[in-house]
Amino acid sequence: SNGITVQEAIETAIKELIGETVTINGCSRTDAGVHAREYCFNFFTKSTIPCDGFVKGINAFLPTDIAVHSCAEVDDNFHARFDTKSKEYIYRISTLPIRDVFSESLMLHHPYPLDAEKMDKTAQLFVGRHDFAAFCTAESKTPLKSTVREISSARVSRFGDVVEFCVSGGGFLHNMVRILAGTLVYHSDGKLSDDDIISAFSHGDRTKTGKTLPPQGLYLNKVNY
Amino acid sequence: SNGITVQEAIETAIKELIGETVTINGCSRTDAGVHAREYCFNFFTKSTIPCDGFVKGINAFLPTDIAVHSCAEVDDNFHARFDTKSKEYIYRISTLPIRDVFSESLMLHHPYPLDAEKMDKTAQLFVGRHDFAAFCTAESKTPLKSTVREISSARVSRFGDVVEFCVSGGGFLHNMVRILAGTLVYHSDGKLSDDDIISAFSHGDRTKTGKTLPPQGLYLNKVNY
Repeated sequence: SNGITVQEAIETAIKELIGETVTINGCSRTDAGVHAREYCFNFFTKSTIPCDGFVKGINAFLPTDIAVHSCAEVDDNFHARFDTKSKEYIYRISTLPIRDVFSESLMLHHPYPLDAEKMDKTAQLFVGRHDFAAFCTAESKTPLKSTVREISSARVSRFGDVVEFCVSGGGFLHNMVRILAGTLVYHSDGKLSDDDIISAFSHGDRTKTGKTLPPQGLYLNKVNY
Repeated sequence: SNGITVQEAIETAIKELIGETVTINGCSRTDAGVHAREYCFNFFTKSTIPCDGFVKGINAFLPTDIAVHSCAEVDDNFHARFDTKSKEYIYRISTLPIRDVFSESLMLHHPYPLDAEKMDKTAQLFVGRHDFAAFCTAESKTPLKSTVREISSARVSRFGDVVEFCVSGGGFLHNMVRILAGTLVYHSDGKLSDDDIISAFSHGDRTKTGKTLPPQGLYLNKVNY
C-alpha cells in the first residue's frame, strides 16, 4: 500500500521527459501483483513531440518493469477508461510438480494435475449475461450498483505444464477473474459441480464459489475500444 | 553484499527440516544477479529421511525463488565442487526493440540486431585450450594461478528475438562467460575482429576485449560429474 503505483511511475517519466505535470487516465484499476500485457491510458499535453518520440522517451525514464509500446493522438473526447468496449484477461497456472523459480511471480504454482479440457467445458457456464455477485469481493457490492456483467467468451487451454484461462467481456467486478479461475480449479478438483456454478448466479453467495487465486497469475491481456 | 545467499537459504531450510546445522559444499560460486538452472551441492547428515522426502521437505522451507529438483545419496568422498568434470553456462540476450517487462531480470535487453550465425562462427575461436587472461576480472589474476582454461564447445543460437550463447568447459575464470558474451556482441557490432580475439589469447590485455555483460543474462545450465 506504500509502494509506487504504475500510474505514478508513468506520470513521473512524462514529467521528466516534457517537464509537464500530467494526470493520466488509465483504462482500469489493477491490484498489487497483477500484470498487464496491454494497458491503455490517455493524457492531455501541450508537447509537440511526435508519438514515436513519446514511446522512446518515456521508456528511457520508466523503471525496467514498465514499458510503453505505442502512442497515438486521439480526439479530445477520448477517455481510456470510459471508452473501453471490452477487455480480455488471462489467468496462468503452472502444474509442474516442482516450482519453476523463473516464473514464480508470473503464474500460480499449483503442483497438481488439472484437466484443461474439462475446465474449458466448465468455463462455458460463465459465458453470457449473469449476476456475478457470488464471484466478486464484498466491497464491490453496494446497494445501488449492479453485479450483472456479460462475458462474451471464456476458454481454457494447456501449453505444456501451463494451464491458461482466457476470458473476455465488457466489464469485470473486483477480483472476478481470480474468483472465476479459482472456481474452475475447485470444479476440476471435484469440489464444485456444474449445478453449484449455475445456482451461484441466483443465490449470489460468495462463500459457495471457488477461492480468489493469488494476483501473480492474472494478466490484463487486451483492451478494445 | 548484505543480502542472504542461496547457500544460507538452503542451510536454513535444512536446519528447519531436520534440526541439524549443516554446511553445504556448492559446485561453484556465482555472482549476485546470476541464475542457475542446475546447481549441485552436497552435505553430510545423520538424518534417515529418504531422498524424496528431502526434496519435498527442503522446498517447503525454501523461499520461492530457490527450488531443489533432486537428491541422491553419494559416497563419503564426493565433493560437489572438486569432483566437477565440466560445466555449461548460457548467456541470454533479448533483441526486442521494446523491452519485455516479464523477462527483464532473466536476460540482457540489447535492442539492436545481432547476427547469431556470425556470432556462432566467432564463438568457435574460443574453443580449445587458451590463456583467457584477457577474458577475466583483474582480481582472478594472481601470480601463482594459471589463467589457462579449456573450452570444449561454444555455440550461439537464435530463438525468436532471443540470442543464446552456450559454452561448456572444465572450468571458468571470474566473469569469463560474461566477458566472452560481451566480446561476441562487440564482434557482431563490428568493434572487434577475429584477429583481435585471437591475439587476446597472447597479449592477455583485458581492455582489448568486450565488456562484462550484466549478470541477469547468465545461467549456470549444467554441472557434469
